[in-house]
Amino acid sequence: MSKYCFGVDVGGTTVKMGLFTPDGDLLEKWEIPTRTEEQGAHIIDDIAEAIDRKIKDAHIDRDDVIGVGVGVPGPVNKDGIVFQAVNLGWGVVDLRKELHEKTGFRVKAGNDANVAALGEQWKGGGKGYDDMVLVTLGTGVGGGIIVNGKMLVGVGGAGGEIGHIHLEDEETEPCGCGNYGCMEQYASATGIVRLAKRKLAKSSADSVLRNGPLSAKHIWDAIKDGDALAVEVAEEFGEYLGKGLAIIADICNPKIFVLGGGVSKAGDILITYVQKYYKKYVFHASRDAIFTLAVLENDAGIYGAAKLILD
Amino acid sequence: MSKYCFGVDVGGTTVKMGLFTPDGDLLEKWEIPTRTEEQGAHIIDDIAEAIDRKIKDAHIDRDDVIGVGVGVPGPVNKDGIVFQAVNLGWGVVDLRKELHEKTGFRVKAGNDANVAALGEQWKGGGKGYDDMVLVTLGTGVGGGIIVNGKMLVGVGGAGGEIGHIHLEDEETEPCGCGNYGCMEQYASATGIVRLAKRKLAKSSADSVLRNGPLSAKHIWDAIKDGDALAVEVAEEFGEYLGKGLAIIADICNPKIFVLGGGVSKAGDILITYVQKYYKKYVFHASRDAIFTLAVLENDAGIYGAAKLILD
Repeated sequence: MSKYCFGVDVGGTTVKMGLFTPDGDLLEKWEIPTRTEEQGAHIIDDIAEAIDRKIKDAHIDRDDVIGVGVGVPGPVNKDGIVFQAVNLGWGVVDLRKELHEKTGFRVKAGNDANVAALGEQWKGGGKGYDDMVLVTLGTGVGGGIIVNGKMLVGVGGAGGEIGHIHLEDEETEPCGCGNYGCMEQYASATGIVRLAKRKLAKSSADSVLRNGPLSAKHIWDAIKDGDALAVEVAEEFGEYLGKGLAIIADICNPKIFVLGGGVSKAGDILITYVQKYYKKYVFHASRDAIFTLAVLENDAGIYGAAKLILD
Repeated sequence: MSKYCFGVDVGGTTVKMGLFTPDGDLLEKWEIPTRTEEQGAHIIDDIAEAIDRKIKDAHIDRDDVIGVGVGVPGPVNKDGIVFQAVNLGWGVVDLRKELHEKTGFRVKAGNDANVAALGEQWKGGGKGYDDMVLVTLGTGVGGGIIVNGKMLVGVGGAGGEIGHIHLEDEETEPCGCGNYGCMEQYASATGIVRLAKRKLAKSSADSVLRNGPLSAKHIWDAIKDGDALAVEVAEEFGEYLGKGLAIIADICNPKIFVLGGGVSKAGDILITYVQKYYKKYVFHASRDAIFTLAVLENDAGIYGAAKLILD
């Protein structure tokens, strides 16, 4: 008899949903809108209803459903309690209990970045490696750490908040978190733009970066074209990110780093710059960690959520 | 019927051994010399013989022995294979297999610092907390990270090498590991002496530190006496260590930090300086981590080794 599980990735705009086999085959995926009105009071109902509808439409026997895994944009502790998810309007929500009551199924929940790491470890760039780190280079820097095949959750669900490790004593502008010198101030899409702006302001050298609006893509294209000033920016970016990942390796000794998020679309050249500085700063025992790119893109969350309930 | 287990902590000079109940009562402890000659070829035989002798002397039924846990000064992977233990003369040693063959008992092995963390989490300063970090401030800085009640071992057994996280870009002297600016260059017993020497060389201020040979104890005594220059050294020391532990918290989100090793004999004043800077640098989600002092001292290793085989 076939068995099924659901993987749910709750975002601020849409809830991504997937129907999986226990082997990790994605049978169907679809989205529903995230209704953030009334402090997100309808989100759990909407998820339960969408699951119920899919079960009916696909003629699935409820006894064949193993359960539902959910990723949420906020800290989630080991008991599936969400402490705060600003983008959903949630304060403290006992997601595991509430969704279980509304579906009748077993539920597990985790932070979306940690859950995405579990997805990349199960079926993506980190497949086959029990000790891996997913580094998501988007507007900010997020991450998830997998230790011995399990998410590193921490006591309050804030494990893997790698974007906020302190890297720069000289920083004068605050990070979104209120501290100064966090990794995501340099190693994100917005971070590389900041580095480029500072470099342009200090230098009088000619550069294609002086034409048009600056974006991470624009900068990486210039790096690939060999623009000298852009290459200097890449070195700085690589030094910050490589140093940050070296520190993570000294603490967690992973086998592999998987780089995802918008900035990772730069491709292998990103790895070249990061790995150079990673090797400079890391303790020798972790020197040979593998660097690779994420492969599941926006589906990492539903894959990881499904894996969460299967574990 | 009573059950027993053995906890073994292999050091470069002596092997510490403990006979425990499964509840963690230490019934007997004793030491044997570590015979490092012939690349440490006799160490495993000596441990097996000491266990055998204790079983006979204490009239223990071999069927009542749950097993033997061992901590070793070097990286040990999840399969109990030691990769190198310089102080023992060992290269790659399949400790779990060899000691099992020589004793007939189930064996588990881990890195000594990680195993000590497990001991402090089981019966010491971190008792009752599933997510904790032991920071051992001795000649260098060692550590062990406990995630969800288990040691963070990493792929090659180098998890928790926190002494070598990079903290200082301006350092000109190399660390023992070959890198520049590692945490243990500042936050260890030798590190605080370096900080004091540099401070004395730069300053012409009067200080008791100018009299007699410098040691960590001498410096902490001067800090407690309110010596102004020594207090400046304490601030620097606290900033390095607090910053390093904040980074660890961003990654692992522990509930508690347990400070051990010789420098921790300074007592609660050490926590005052470290916690001040920890709160400055840490991501808000980990701001309320508890700081406490280790309690098991040299017995942490045998306790943790016993716990290892019980898990």
